[in-house]
Amino acid sequence: MKARTKTAFLFDMDGTLLDSVYEHVMAWGQALHENKIEVPVWKIHRRIGMSGGLFTAALTRELGHDIDEATKTRLRDRHAEIYNGISARIQPLPGAIKLLEHLSANDIPWAIATSSQMKTAAPVLAKFGVDPAKHVVVTRDMVRYAKPDPDLFLAAAEKLGVDIKEACVVGDAVWDMLASKRAHALGIGFLSGGYGEEELIRAGAYRVFEDPADMLTHIDEVGGRR
Amino acid sequence: MKARTKTAFLFDMDGTLLDSVYEHVMAWGQALHENKIEVPVWKIHRRIGMSGGLFTAALTRELGHDIDEATKTRLRDRHAEIYNGISARIQPLPGAIKLLEHLSANDIPWAIATSSQMKTAAPVLAKFGVDPAKHVVVTRDMVRYAKPDPDLFLAAAEKLGVDIKEACVVGDAVWDMLASKRAHALGIGFLSGGYGEEELIRAGAYRVFEDPADMLTHIDEVGGRR
Repeated sequence: MKARTKTAFLFDMDGTLLDSVYEHVMAWGQALHENKIEVPVWKIHRRIGMSGGLFTAALTRELGHDIDEATKTRLRDRHAEIYNGISARIQPLPGAIKLLEHLSANDIPWAIATSSQMKTAAPVLAKFGVDPAKHVVVTRDMVRYAKPDPDLFLAAAEKLGVDIKEACVVGDAVWDMLASKRAHALGIGFLSGGYGEEELIRAGAYRVFEDPADMLTHIDEVGGRR
Repeated sequence: MKARTKTAFLFDMDGTLLDSVYEHVMAWGQALHENKIEVPVWKIHRRIGMSGGLFTAALTRELGHDIDEATKTRLRDRHAEIYNGISARIQPLPGAIKLLEHLSANDIPWAIATSSQMKTAAPVLAKFGVDPAKHVVVTRDMVRYAKPDPDLFLAAAEKLGVDIKEACVVGDAVWDMLASKRAHALGIGFLSGGYGEEELIRAGAYRVFEDPADMLTHIDEVGGRR
């Protein structure tokens, strides 16, 4: 039998390494409200982490009428503006920094794959010691389709030089888990984005942890042998 | 066989009739952050709707050290202040007003039972046409223990003059469902507070709807015959 390759870990960012999901929710809620579009907040929450295009498509279905392109652009810009205004107080999730350090120290390949643009992601990546010049970071602007399409994770595996079938996608959203299935990777779900455990399992997670700290405690159960 | 009494509906307010859970989450998050207490936001979310005393007890467990009484008071006051500052934009959830109107028009008893104080609840009750002088509203200040203790729902049933065993507790939080079990009432869960469906079912919900509009559409399935 050939020696197996080491499991690689492909991380989502918002809600997985960074405690930022609720800030994104509120920023979208406020942007929509200012544009006289009323959507219940929990429905925004359940759409965070998917591609912006699919987000506005879902919104259109929800409202039962189309949103014109100018409004879509205005919403996206206003969301970014509000989010950037509050992002200073956003913290890494418990254990995020230690988990990445552990993987690096044990030569276990890891990367970050986020539906955010690089210009939004770069300032927050620094909060948990990630430098796109040194680590593999794949952002929205590098691929054709964002989550729940598998492109972000496929690109991350390719950049790491690993087989996606030997990789784990780690995320807090149903969209990460759906993308992991489509990429033929295993999915690990975190509760730290505010989804329930069974929502993640039903979407394909083969294991669910609370947050990065909880995953680090159990890392040997999911292929991160020391 | 004796004629059965009509099912009565005992509603939670925040996240069930009012789209306010995420605003409460952010207000707590900001109050804690200002007091140099860092708690991941999803853990705050999962505690909304429980009694303030149990909320701070849970916080103490989470932090691994005690919080002094002065800080607890400061946190509660600051949460109320921030929440009141943003509560103007808070809307009733889809169908909330129509659902209560339907029940009233069909002589189906209903009441509101909330872990909020009357001073916080009164201004928002008006948003969906509820007047504590005309309708049964039970608030935190009227009972000894708030949710997940059953006192609020027991008091609401008593005020309505209905048997709690013939009542349905309607809420968005696991704490409402636990209280419904302890009160020997049936529990109906709503997704509109951001919990997952299975979290509500595991906590005792015998039926789950998206929000008040969804419940109104299916009202004849849960005892609200027209």
